[in-house]
Amino acid sequence: MVYFFFYPKTIAVIGATSNPKKFGNAVTINILKNKDIQSQLYLISHKSKEILGLKCYTSILEIPEHIDIAIILVPAKAVDGVIEQCIEKKVKGIIIITAGFGEINEEGKKKEQEIAKNCKEAGIRVMGPNCVGIQNLDIGLNASFIQAAPPGKISMISQSGSFGCAMFYAMASQNLGCSKFANIGNNIDVSFNEILDFFNEDKNTEIICIYMETITDGRVFLKTLKDIVLNKPIIVLKGGRTAYGMKAASSHTGSIATNYKMLKTSINQSRALLCENTSDFITALKAYSFLPLPKGEKIGVLTNSGGSSVLFSDKAEEFNLRLASFSETLIDKMKPYLISLVKFINPLDMIGVADKEQYYNVTKLMLEDPGIDIVVACVVIPPFLEMKSDEHYRGIIKAWNDTKRIKPLITLIMFAEEFSDIRDHSKKENTTIFFTPHDAAYAIKILIERMKLLVKSRANQKF
Amino acid sequence: MVYFFFYPKTIAVIGATSNPKKFGNAVTINILKNKDIQSQLYLISHKSKEILGLKCYTSILEIPEHIDIAIILVPAKAVDGVIEQCIEKKVKGIIIITAGFGEINEEGKKKEQEIAKNCKEAGIRVMGPNCVGIQNLDIGLNASFIQAAPPGKISMISQSGSFGCAMFYAMASQNLGCSKFANIGNNIDVSFNEILDFFNEDKNTEIICIYMETITDGRVFLKTLKDIVLNKPIIVLKGGRTAYGMKAASSHTGSIATNYKMLKTSINQSRALLCENTSDFITALKAYSFLPLPKGEKIGVLTNSGGSSVLFSDKAEEFNLRLASFSETLIDKMKPYLISLVKFINPLDMIGVADKEQYYNVTKLMLEDPGIDIVVACVVIPPFLEMKSDEHYRGIIKAWNDTKRIKPLITLIMFAEEFSDIRDHSKKENTTIFFTPHDAAYAIKILIERMKLLVKSRANQKF
Repeated sequence: MVYFFFYPKTIAVIGATSNPKKFGNAVTINILKNKDIQSQLYLISHKSKEILGLKCYTSILEIPEHIDIAIILVPAKAVDGVIEQCIEKKVKGIIIITAGFGEINEEGKKKEQEIAKNCKEAGIRVMGPNCVGIQNLDIGLNASFIQAAPPGKISMISQSGSFGCAMFYAMASQNLGCSKFANIGNNIDVSFNEILDFFNEDKNTEIICIYMETITDGRVFLKTLKDIVLNKPIIVLKGGRTAYGMKAASSHTGSIATNYKMLKTSINQSRALLCENTSDFITALKAYSFLPLPKGEKIGVLTNSGGSSVLFSDKAEEFNLRLASFSETLIDKMKPYLISLVKFINPLDMIGVADKEQYYNVTKLMLEDPGIDIVVACVVIPPFLEMKSDEHYRGIIKAWNDTKRIKPLITLIMFAEEFSDIRDHSKKENTTIFFTPHDAAYAIKILIERMKLLVKSRANQKF
Repeated sequence: MVYFFFYPKTIAVIGATSNPKKFGNAVTINILKNKDIQSQLYLISHKSKEILGLKCYTSILEIPEHIDIAIILVPAKAVDGVIEQCIEKKVKGIIIITAGFGEINEEGKKKEQEIAKNCKEAGIRVMGPNCVGIQNLDIGLNASFIQAAPPGKISMISQSGSFGCAMFYAMASQNLGCSKFANIGNNIDVSFNEILDFFNEDKNTEIICIYMETITDGRVFLKTLKDIVLNKPIIVLKGGRTAYGMKAASSHTGSIATNYKMLKTSINQSRALLCENTSDFITALKAYSFLPLPKGEKIGVLTNSGGSSVLFSDKAEEFNLRLASFSETLIDKMKPYLISLVKFINPLDMIGVADKEQYYNVTKLMLEDPGIDIVVACVVIPPFLEMKSDEHYRGIIKAWNDTKRIKPLITLIMFAEEFSDIRDHSKKENTTIFFTPHDAAYAIKILIERMKLLVKSRANQKF
């Protein structure tokens, strides 16, 4: 069980310091940033007597309480001695943040094996070495030297701490948020699989994502994915897919070469979602975080920009999506809201004059139509006719709210990243925006795939 | 010749209005926004006597001067009469912004043919109908109803006006700029080819990009691309690549189905760059706008984030790029700047502690190294150790400046879109940033392709 790593009653930071140029300071500050933190924090430092008002101990052995997790930040050569003390103290788990082990050379690899062996014998679980730490945003715990992730419902394992750090920037800008974050670095004890199992059982985790560079026990990993994926969506990004990438990964986390083609086949079979690039990885998180699964595959598209719906239609076909045919009933209902130039085919091009009211009414009619399962509202923000840059988006979201958000509504607002009014409204309404035709179509593709997976699994259960 | 469309001495707006809810108002306002506009503007309106201080005429025939271009915004049914007057007035060119012709039905197509025929007989050139107008940012002319593009050196033909409009948002956010913009809509007279020829001769145009949905004279178009491409890079995005896309395009600009596979082969043979999605289209514009062509293919990579350089290495191999081997000389030069944990292999992972000085020195050494043709500086912005979020980027750009920007320097700053300090510095220094491994690798791929194209063409010339 790795639960206690994320819900520690007591934490010892070994290698705490008041020097802001050291990671031992960053971790201490990050934990203490949350004034209401429930975990009791103990600092161990050779140089300081007090840091941020907290008394420092010179050894973990001096601490009167039992310690759940010890976070080690001392230099590599001092790690051994510190671990001995942790064993004597009978801590439950250790996070070794210190780098300079298996990712450096064979000697480092040996040292890791020793540490793993000793801790295993003592019944102590280990994360790291060469990691940034862990986070549990549900209890406001940032036990890492990177910034706290925005809180939310995604739980992430990243084999690269800096990738996690970068992802938090991306997540913050896309209104995405984390429940738990683990960076297990060189990965000498606690495995991906154990953390995945914990994420699966964790109530606050609704979506799981993984950045991995190597996998040590492939068969168990793939079985774990299979077990979880019907319960929660899992999104995987693999670094080291190519010879160049693997060489870089081996120097990064001491990873062993993986046959990506085989891994890809296996992950696809497990029905976890394997992304080939970072953009799709983020798009997948957005889709699963903000959109309900569709009941069917038929897509209705409305737009004020022919070009953007043409580009979306191309991507839709490239992803094997299906555009709906509008029924006569739907056409009759839409007609009163549209000007005479509009042709009633899907995508519905309402032309540049289309305003908030038209977007509201037509989006709503499509969302209510039994022949449409998914609605794509494309917008190019009109810089004319005194229209407000966010009015179309407001109309669209109002229609979604008024239909209780039952169907997935994809808003494709072309290149609108810099429109803060739209971004603000999106945040306030807890919705997401796609900025390119590719991203919008990809989001739909994976929602449909997941819907089909769940339908099939339910059907199997019935037999 | 279509030169006069972009440098008109006199413009008549037919259908000018003081009603801000009409496109005739938007075009008038947009032209007059530039107080120093050199083109003489005449307004023709049935309702207003004066708009924005400018006298209105009731017919183009009343205007005492010769008219270079007449911009028509009257309702579709009034277009015929207005064109008759333009013919009588012997204007040089007409831009029909009014929609409701070939994109609507067969009757509209017939009407277009009539207009084309009548104007041809009178020696008048026509752009449109169903377009947003044209822009020449070099002289501050925005003769369209969309916002003026940011000024720059890219010239764009877009068959979709709204795609142009969206592109201007993207360009503004990426420090890109336009020299000329033409949206020729249903494309009944002035062809892509003529505008491309003009862009080729135009001194301010350094890069050409095209959004197209249909092409009427394929052979001439491909010959035009071939003729230009050694002189200026041409980037093409095709809407209507699939059956769904073509159906949407046909309703949008009355486009005829194109066999995309054949077109793709032909465009690739012409050596223009065909992009499969909008992100690559923008990445290509960034690469050609801000980066010199490399002299060779060998890439040197530095990073503070193992994960990002692993992901970049994967993309590099996927795009058939070549990572350099560091020479002993380079390694000896770099050593003094790096901590002992660093392994001297490419990508060079300087680890999270790397600061501005290290980025400056190592980037400079790689830029100066004869064994490296292209430098990729990867950064994950460190949220720790009191580092400033833009310091690495500043170090990188200083190194580029100090080496006179001779080699292409690709800055890959993972998911840094929201860091305004970095964005501001990038704008001030007239540089570009790539935010994902895919985009960085794609930029290099197309720079190398273009380098090879030019080398080959020069070699051929010598024989």
